[in-house]
Amino acid sequence: MKLSKSLIDDSVYKIPENLDDSKNIDKFLSSNKDKPVVVVQGLGFVGSVMSLVCANSIKNEYSVIGIDLPNEESFWKICSINDGVFPVVSSDKKVESFFEESKKRGNLYATYDTYAYKKADIVIVDINLDVAKESSEFKDLESYDVDLSGFKKAIRSIGKNCKEGIFVLIETTVPPGSTKIAYDILYQEMTQRGLNATNLFVGHSYERVMPGPNYIDSIQNFYRVYSGINEESAEKTKNFLETIISTKKYPLTKLKNTNSTELSKVLENSYRAMNISFIVEWSRFAEEAGVDLYEVVNAIRMRPTHKNIMLPGIGVGGYCLTKDPLLASWSKQNIFSSSEPLTMSEESVRTNDKMPEKAFNFLKSSFGKSLEGKKILLLGISYLPDVGDTRYTPVELFYKYLAGENCIINLHDPFIKFWEEIDIEISNDYSCLEDDTDIVVISTGHSEYKSQDGFLKKIMNIHKLFILDTVGLLNEKQIADLKTIHDVKVLGRGDI
Amino acid sequence: MKLSKSLIDDSVYKIPENLDDSKNIDKFLSSNKDKPVVVVQGLGFVGSVMSLVCANSIKNEYSVIGIDLPNEESFWKICSINDGVFPVVSSDKKVESFFEESKKRGNLYATYDTYAYKKADIVIVDINLDVAKESSEFKDLESYDVDLSGFKKAIRSIGKNCKEGIFVLIETTVPPGSTKIAYDILYQEMTQRGLNATNLFVGHSYERVMPGPNYIDSIQNFYRVYSGINEESAEKTKNFLETIISTKKYPLTKLKNTNSTELSKVLENSYRAMNISFIVEWSRFAEEAGVDLYEVVNAIRMRPTHKNIMLPGIGVGGYCLTKDPLLASWSKQNIFSSSEPLTMSEESVRTNDKMPEKAFNFLKSSFGKSLEGKKILLLGISYLPDVGDTRYTPVELFYKYLAGENCIINLHDPFIKFWEEIDIEISNDYSCLEDDTDIVVISTGHSEYKSQDGFLKKIMNIHKLFILDTVGLLNEKQIADLKTIHDVKVLGRGDI
Repeated sequence: MKLSKSLIDDSVYKIPENLDDSKNIDKFLSSNKDKPVVVVQGLGFVGSVMSLVCANSIKNEYSVIGIDLPNEESFWKICSINDGVFPVVSSDKKVESFFEESKKRGNLYATYDTYAYKKADIVIVDINLDVAKESSEFKDLESYDVDLSGFKKAIRSIGKNCKEGIFVLIETTVPPGSTKIAYDILYQEMTQRGLNATNLFVGHSYERVMPGPNYIDSIQNFYRVYSGINEESAEKTKNFLETIISTKKYPLTKLKNTNSTELSKVLENSYRAMNISFIVEWSRFAEEAGVDLYEVVNAIRMRPTHKNIMLPGIGVGGYCLTKDPLLASWSKQNIFSSSEPLTMSEESVRTNDKMPEKAFNFLKSSFGKSLEGKKILLLGISYLPDVGDTRYTPVELFYKYLAGENCIINLHDPFIKFWEEIDIEISNDYSCLEDDTDIVVISTGHSEYKSQDGFLKKIMNIHKLFILDTVGLLNEKQIADLKTIHDVKVLGRGDI
Repeated sequence: MKLSKSLIDDSVYKIPENLDDSKNIDKFLSSNKDKPVVVVQGLGFVGSVMSLVCANSIKNEYSVIGIDLPNEESFWKICSINDGVFPVVSSDKKVESFFEESKKRGNLYATYDTYAYKKADIVIVDINLDVAKESSEFKDLESYDVDLSGFKKAIRSIGKNCKEGIFVLIETTVPPGSTKIAYDILYQEMTQRGLNATNLFVGHSYERVMPGPNYIDSIQNFYRVYSGINEESAEKTKNFLETIISTKKYPLTKLKNTNSTELSKVLENSYRAMNISFIVEWSRFAEEAGVDLYEVVNAIRMRPTHKNIMLPGIGVGGYCLTKDPLLASWSKQNIFSSSEPLTMSEESVRTNDKMPEKAFNFLKSSFGKSLEGKKILLLGISYLPDVGDTRYTPVELFYKYLAGENCIINLHDPFIKFWEEIDIEISNDYSCLEDDTDIVVISTGHSEYKSQDGFLKKIMNIHKLFILDTVGLLNEKQIADLKTIHDVKVLGRGDI
């Protein structure tokens, strides 16, 4: 018997042999009569919160079923939702209150049974679509590939079950061209079942979800771009989005076809990845020229045409920026048969993947002595400030470099108890700042580290340390204060 | 005897053998008693207008001398100013009114005699500092070099003549590290003349001049960054800038040292060059995928974090973006002895240099037939909309490609009568749109081309043409109207 272990509490769930959940689905729907049924496919960082937003739509008009696969990774999320525990921990209080409201209303259910698709009026596709990156242990990107088969299979499972007149909204970040592929699969499956597939509607509209304190608002109160496989599909997409998003304040933008909205999403993220990678070599230049790149970039940002210029940092993490430029380049070559890749976009991923190495080299050269056996405390594991999210965090490579020097490494993060990827406990208090600590590295810009209590207070009562700020967290006054006792260096900042 | 020919009227000036202009300088200064003397070194696109801004300082407190070299290129500018004709034609009416005011006031004079430096309280350095690019005829950048000797010579001429207590403000875009080099030269020259060189002040503050309708405002009403070689120099820089710039509305930003402000300028322009080059490969992708990249980019720009994303286009021109990233990379390697260039910044220049080739290829493939012998009208020569500025215009390479196909090329630009670089007359009216014209290419986004009169009116009364918009000038309605008669294509836009 297979088990699925919760990542947020101690629950362990048995995955059933018999995958029939139809009775429970029917029971759920019978208590939600006359409400259109929205099925959200995928209960990850996007789908789980999207389910909440649909269950709390502006007019509360939907009954919502979240569906995911009955495997070790996902089954616990299904059970957790039905047990009344939301499967994502978030600093956004709206997540909890939206979940409580949907429980009171009884309009949110989770399942693993594709029977749900038979009942759906609307299916929202929020599954993952990964890029397989072939990299060395030290993150040199050697090659990459995209496998559409998981995506196609998920779409096919809808097509094998759905009703005539179904509206499928794809939100997953896909290689441009994929919604048309999905439409063809749905059309084919429906036709094979003898259904009238001209009565099929497929739209594409990507989310711009940011886990963190504005998690819900990043769906409900933010701009959206949308398109449809045809005019009626686009209209259905618009009408649906207007029921869940504050479109008066954040107007929708219609694009001409689904390739356009798909391309828009990967372009957005490639733009951001490229802006980050651009500043990498300038950080090195600033260090060499005795320039504080933070004050330079802040001065440049006063120009409206230069507001999006980025600051130095330890690296890029998360699910999107680390892969979307590759997804785009793959599509250009494999779906649109272009002989040329998106070279600049690919290069930005390559450069960003190596950022932690630059931070490590800066530590090595500015520390000046061997790091062998030194006791080092890393402040922050997450790739984003004030969020406990370790997916593809750049701190991982930084950690590996330190481990390679046989450093004794302590880890702190206020939002993380256990680091899955490295399989190690994380401190949530400053007992990890020990009397024999040699080096402290600020590796995530959590607000807590800026506060005059906590870390900054404790560190003023310890012996001389070497402190490296890799994310520009410390302000001028804090640096000056620390320098009265400690050695302080900042990545992207030469000795001034 | 050498002659210097005006580029803005028919005047021709003889360059004198005897370069003594001291009597005239003395005469000018005696009629401007008690006013601090500002000498502006360089009368190009920046220096000439900077002279105007100084002569029209907030309290009208300066007597201003513009100085340039007595050679064929520059001598006419000196004479022109003293003859009452401003040497730059601009669509900004403030240029003319500022010049008229300074004539009434009698506080602006131009000379070629370094005697002016002897009288200066303040010298502003606004000379050019070029990058020598080695490129193929078709703009493949092969190598580049920076020669500081002209800059050093100009600084030395100040040092050989200036008074004790002189304040030198460098505005020229220089390789980071150059202001320190300039300071050393000035110090050395003053010391050799037995002056007290501790009484020497050197600041750096770059302009953000944009020729065009806001030419004067781009100096007087815009943000500035500044620094000094020491604390007193920084203070003098600030005090001076406050006399010529609306610093209450556009506050100054002080940076820690002169390397920082120098780096800031080349970083700004590299950021912009890189943002442009980033969109080049996405334009190709959009063309392949049947996507209108204009509507996509406009949708993305709704996000505040993505406002600076650029649109497709024919290429990059002008004096700054085409060289500043190289200036930066040269400095990193040659002044700061780094083994690594600024690869991404260099690549952006390389990519942008080739943009006209992409536009040409798009024309070729979307026209579908041979271009051999076709009659083509280019609308716009300037690299910027609504400005008559052909410096490094991308239209030049586009023109060369067409010439290589033996096309018969007509050229139109409302702001340019004669194209120096190609040595050819430019039409200012639409008689150049002839009955046997085959192709019209919109190559500059001049507002005039958008107007329903003029070009758009005339073109609706002609036979079927092939129209290519390389700059996204036409709106949806205009494209639809044109398509009732003509074939219309837009760069960065697939067939939709």
